[in-house]
Amino acid sequence: MSKPASATGTQPLSGVPVARACVVGASGYAGALAAAILWNHPRIVLEAVTSRGEAGRTLQEVYPRYRVPMALEALEALEPERLGALDAALVSYPHGAAAAVVAALRAEGLRVVDLSADFRLRDLETHRAWYGEHGAPELLGKAVFGLTELHRAEVSDADLVANPGCYTTAAVLALAPLARAGLIEDAVVDAKSGVTGAGREPTQTTHFVSVSESVSPYAVDGHRHAPEIDQELLGLGFNGRVTFTPHLVPLSQGLLASCYVTPTRDVDEDELGALYAEAYEGEPFIELADDPPGVSDVRETNVCRISTGIESRTGRALVFAAIDNLWKGASGQAVQNLNLMLGLDETEGLT
Amino acid sequence: MSKPASATGTQPLSGVPVARACVVGASGYAGALAAAILWNHPRIVLEAVTSRGEAGRTLQEVYPRYRVPMALEALEALEPERLGALDAALVSYPHGAAAAVVAALRAEGLRVVDLSADFRLRDLETHRAWYGEHGAPELLGKAVFGLTELHRAEVSDADLVANPGCYTTAAVLALAPLARAGLIEDAVVDAKSGVTGAGREPTQTTHFVSVSESVSPYAVDGHRHAPEIDQELLGLGFNGRVTFTPHLVPLSQGLLASCYVTPTRDVDEDELGALYAEAYEGEPFIELADDPPGVSDVRETNVCRISTGIESRTGRALVFAAIDNLWKGASGQAVQNLNLMLGLDETEGLT
Amino acid sequence: MSKPASATGTQPLSGVPVARACVVGASGYAGALAAAILWNHPRIVLEAVTSRGEAGRTLQEVYPRYRVPMALEALEALEPERLGALDAALVSYPHGAAAAVVAALRAEGLRVVDLSADFRLRDLETHRAWYGEHGAPELLGKAVFGLTELHRAEVSDADLVANPGCYTTAAVLALAPLARAGLIEDAVVDAKSGVTGAGREPTQTTHFVSVSESVSPYAVDGHRHAPEIDQELLGLGFNGRVTFTPHLVPLSQGLLASCYVTPTRDVDEDELGALYAEAYEGEPFIELADDPPGVSDVRETNVCRISTGIESRTGRALVFAAIDNLWKGASGQAVQNLNLMLGLDETEGLT
Amino acid sequence: MSKPASATGTQPLSGVPVARACVVGASGYAGALAAAILWNHPRIVLEAVTSRGEAGRTLQEVYPRYRVPMALEALEALEPERLGALDAALVSYPHGAAAAVVAALRAEGLRVVDLSADFRLRDLETHRAWYGEHGAPELLGKAVFGLTELHRAEVSDADLVANPGCYTTAAVLALAPLARAGLIEDAVVDAKSGVTGAGREPTQTTHFVSVSESVSPYAVDGHRHAPEIDQELLGLGFNGRVTFTPHLVPLSQGLLASCYVTPTRDVDEDELGALYAEAYEGEPFIELADDPPGVSDVRETNVCRISTGIESRTGRALVFAAIDNLWKGASGQAVQNLNLMLGLDETEGLT
Repeated sequence: MSKPASATGTQPLSGVPVARACVVGASGYAGALAAAILWNHPRIVLEAVTSRGEAGRTLQEVYPRYRVPMALEALEALEPERLGALDAALVSYPHGAAAAVVAALRAEGLRVVDLSADFRLRDLETHRAWYGEHGAPELLGKAVFGLTELHRAEVSDADLVANPGCYTTAAVLALAPLARAGLIEDAVVDAKSGVTGAGREPTQTTHFVSVSESVSPYAVDGHRHAPEIDQELLGLGFNGRVTFTPHLVPLSQGLLASCYVTPTRDVDEDELGALYAEAYEGEPFIELADDPPGVSDVRETNVCRISTGIESRTGRALVFAAIDNLWKGASGQAVQNLNLMLGLDETEGLT
Repeated sequence: MSKPASATGTQPLSGVPVARACVVGASGYAGALAAAILWNHPRIVLEAVTSRGEAGRTLQEVYPRYRVPMALEALEALEPERLGALDAALVSYPHGAAAAVVAALRAEGLRVVDLSADFRLRDLETHRAWYGEHGAPELLGKAVFGLTELHRAEVSDADLVANPGCYTTAAVLALAPLARAGLIEDAVVDAKSGVTGAGREPTQTTHFVSVSESVSPYAVDGHRHAPEIDQELLGLGFNGRVTFTPHLVPLSQGLLASCYVTPTRDVDEDELGALYAEAYEGEPFIELADDPPGVSDVRETNVCRISTGIESRTGRALVFAAIDNLWKGASGQAVQNLNLMLGLDETEGLT
Repeated sequence: MSKPASATGTQPLSGVPVARACVVGASGYAGALAAAILWNHPRIVLEAVTSRGEAGRTLQEVYPRYRVPMALEALEALEPERLGALDAALVSYPHGAAAAVVAALRAEGLRVVDLSADFRLRDLETHRAWYGEHGAPELLGKAVFGLTELHRAEVSDADLVANPGCYTTAAVLALAPLARAGLIEDAVVDAKSGVTGAGREPTQTTHFVSVSESVSPYAVDGHRHAPEIDQELLGLGFNGRVTFTPHLVPLSQGLLASCYVTPTRDVDEDELGALYAEAYEGEPFIELADDPPGVSDVRETNVCRISTGIESRTGRALVFAAIDNLWKGASGQAVQNLNLMLGLDETEGLT
Repeated sequence: MSKPASATGTQPLSGVPVARACVVGASGYAGALAAAILWNHPRIVLEAVTSRGEAGRTLQEVYPRYRVPMALEALEALEPERLGALDAALVSYPHGAAAAVVAALRAEGLRVVDLSADFRLRDLETHRAWYGEHGAPELLGKAVFGLTELHRAEVSDADLVANPGCYTTAAVLALAPLARAGLIEDAVVDAKSGVTGAGREPTQTTHFVSVSESVSPYAVDGHRHAPEIDQELLGLGFNGRVTFTPHLVPLSQGLLASCYVTPTRDVDEDELGALYAEAYEGEPFIELADDPPGVSDVRETNVCRISTGIESRTGRALVFAAIDNLWKGASGQAVQNLNLMLGLDETEGLT
């Protein structure tokens, strides 16, 4: 019998360890999954998991399905000796609360992947407009935006990676080849997300009865991921603003971005298909599909599955991208980035 | 004890009957609900319900929740004497199969609301392109398109009403005020529907395991409701084509149309709100909401709930319309139309 | 257009009013449904709806789907003048908080149906063991247990009715005919409930992600409805204790009680069927079904649907009872009781 | 980019291969998962996957989420040369259709794990009573019942293993320690299963609309797994018959068995806990939990999670066992058995 609730399990490390890491904020959905991925990672030793609200319990008491028997600790319990022995941290704190912790971990010399929004927007004014004052503005210019497929080289050299938002990840992976080719005149992104995207905090919004048997738009005049999407598309040459609207759908994990692009010139399906095939040639976590993806196709994987087509009635390009919002949309991509920062193959621990 | 499976219940008629009706094809989702609404209708006597596949069972054996104890009969059992005593029929047959039945019922002098697509498209060539040969082309010009709020007067005078598709109903109600005001430059409609929209036939698509925990686009290069939407918007003055993409979401009943409109000129929220308030003033089944609607807000009602707004980042108009696809999207609107055809208040039996 | 968020709607009263009532605690699931039923009741005028947490909003802002435009008020706003003009109150407060309010309303001369557990257990010691100190012990002996089918005559004469728990309602209606016939040697009740049964308060338990794709037992060594079930079965002649275990299943509304009865002597299916047919002859809200009921058969109805059978391998009697936990399990039965207390047909407003 | 729909992927074998295997009937839910597990198995080479209805497609076209790029073939394409090169087969055919195929594969010298019911019941008359004539009665006595934790030694030596039913697995693992200790006087098993348990065939029963928002009992007077449960408990010393009733709940994967045991003598919680701790000491796939398990705790794992307790009001022992019906209830346990038959650690490929 394997006792589920003890703290005495042994991490099933199967390769030569290259780094020691911790997860700060491991009791939220993203932090817990990040810890579970690292617990099963063949080359990274998970040394600690922290929580502000659940310290004292084991991670598997809070999330039985992840089977990580480590005890959740207060972050203070790591300072400063144990932190000094670590190489890296994944930080999964709420927006605003992360910046100071990230700064402190950086000061101890750790490489950090921050899953919050605190370092995603490079423009301080834009950040202030959406999130208020910044807790560590001096680090803003030093963070690399961790959409791995777009910024692989910078991520590999980075000490601090700002992990993208879930919607940003799906939308930008869907639109990047068109943006880079100068083919976007205008774009609408209608996104649908499962409830884990709203976080573990129980609210009326996340109550089963509110979500079940419904589907509803939210943040319809401006979701915080919109400026992230703009920033990334601008970097690829699209100097406009997309319309972006998220919807809550009755499922736990998964995100679909339906993208409607008015092209700058006529494009046919062959050209479109070739554009994406070339753009994502060799990418381990991008799947190009002939048929539109469903989010169940990518559940519990780090894959972004994309289909493309031209609507013949209008000439519009339609691109659909499905991800698991907790994996490629959060913790999976965070580990993908961490692997690169540590010189590992980016797929380690993720397949 | 009320015995659920007998055929001896009595229709709870509470007003003076004005008409006698039947439902042809009452074992599908839409036909069964139409029968249930008529069974509880205060002024219409439901005389017969027919089914091709379930004749011999009672309707409540097939749909316990509707509690209609009438026996399902073969259509042939009504011909010709019993048909002659009827005033009206609701026909809920598959596309292609309906036309001949509708023609026969019309020949017997019955007023007909047809829930299939057979009489929706007024242009025969367009019908052929999407559905193949037509079974009763001579009736095509005589059918009124039953989007009640747009064609109330014609419906009141009609002998044959083509009940709109569910997507058409939501999309056109969402866009009509903008179309009529000449404010649509371009529009994208991203729609999400529950599984009853796919019909009662068990298929891989409607299997619980295919739908649960997923969301996926379908018919991405041309759903049959697209030419209906075009036809109706053209009638309102929009001489273009909208992009329309349906998605299947894991719920049984409900439909949300998220509409993204590039306006022909700058429009602000006040003007937009006033436009819709005026357009739908006094409408018994249109609700204008301040917040975006969820489909659970309208479940088991004939209401179309609409919210409007301007996305400040882009100036786009965003209109969201939620309906119950089986009610306002099918059987509820069919009875709304039938009420008008029979000179009744259109809300009878629907509130 | 029908404006959803105003407080100016008019109650669609269709008969001669016989009483004026209020709902105290109308922002919880049960209270809101009770208000919605009374708002549409043909003979009872709904004069006020109160809420401790949502006063100031309209009921339809909190529950758009119920379309009750009345403003939620603080209870204090009714005292004492407006209370004096009322005939009855439905009280839907949490256990413990209800007793004092009920006592105050009784002191004003109102007839009261209390949906909490405060007056369900007639034995004060048992009440204390499960709920702690009682807030109005002097009223305990004066309350009638409102399982209508079992106590119709007492309910008709009552000033105070303790509305049964949802599990109690299903389990006791399932077991009563066997208990009354002295046929229960031993019984196991395995019950499955939707999430509305856990209340509107957002908690980890009611979070969508906790419930979706799972099913789990809870309160496995003693749910508070167990002593209610015992009390009622004892009144019917079964002097034992049933095993009762509730489970949470991923749906919003609905409750199934699966009852496994070891009979005191051999019983065959014919005898069993006849026993139930006789017991529930003429009952307007009891349906005896040939096949086991699903909870969707009774959704949004006040019906309890029951099937019976003998497991041939063991001779055990199997009885399955399905209800909508918010209707027959709470607010529907509350109005059924109120109707009787006011001298109305018990089905008024409920079909 | 990893192309999802080609047949050119390479199995990610990470250890020294010890055997070559095929999955016969890989397009059903259980067969597909069996193929996916073997595709990722470090020591077993998956040489072929067959299908009667989907031959010609790749497995990942039918099940994108499993990402197995092998082409589904007709079984005939393997005969006889390629079969001769194989060591083992997992057969996932419907009951009745499996026996002849199993006999043929055995005749070719392959070790076989049969996921159907064809070889589960050792008594031919009992088999006939539940399933009709047997297709290979001569093999009936040679099959080992593959409930691994109960028959590990025989499985290790077996050439033919009859993989248990999903309900049997959960119920017998829940009851075995009590049965072996002679503590079961009588038992009721109320089981709840997700829809994958009903198979991939689209029917009214598996239609999303039938399942969603409902819960319902089925096969209430005799499910085919009941005689399996009896057979296994008899082998452990319980010479009686349990009451067993399955229910369908609205989720895809997962099964909970709630077991209510009248003990032969008084048992307290400590004794009960000790009994299970001893019985399952060292079992890699049995988890004993302090709190009742939810099926989401074991999703996509081969774990059976069990909690035990005594209902203080009645003295009954309550045992809850949760499994993933496709893993421990079918394909996971099949591979667990195959590992043993091939001399491998039984956890290989399953963690």
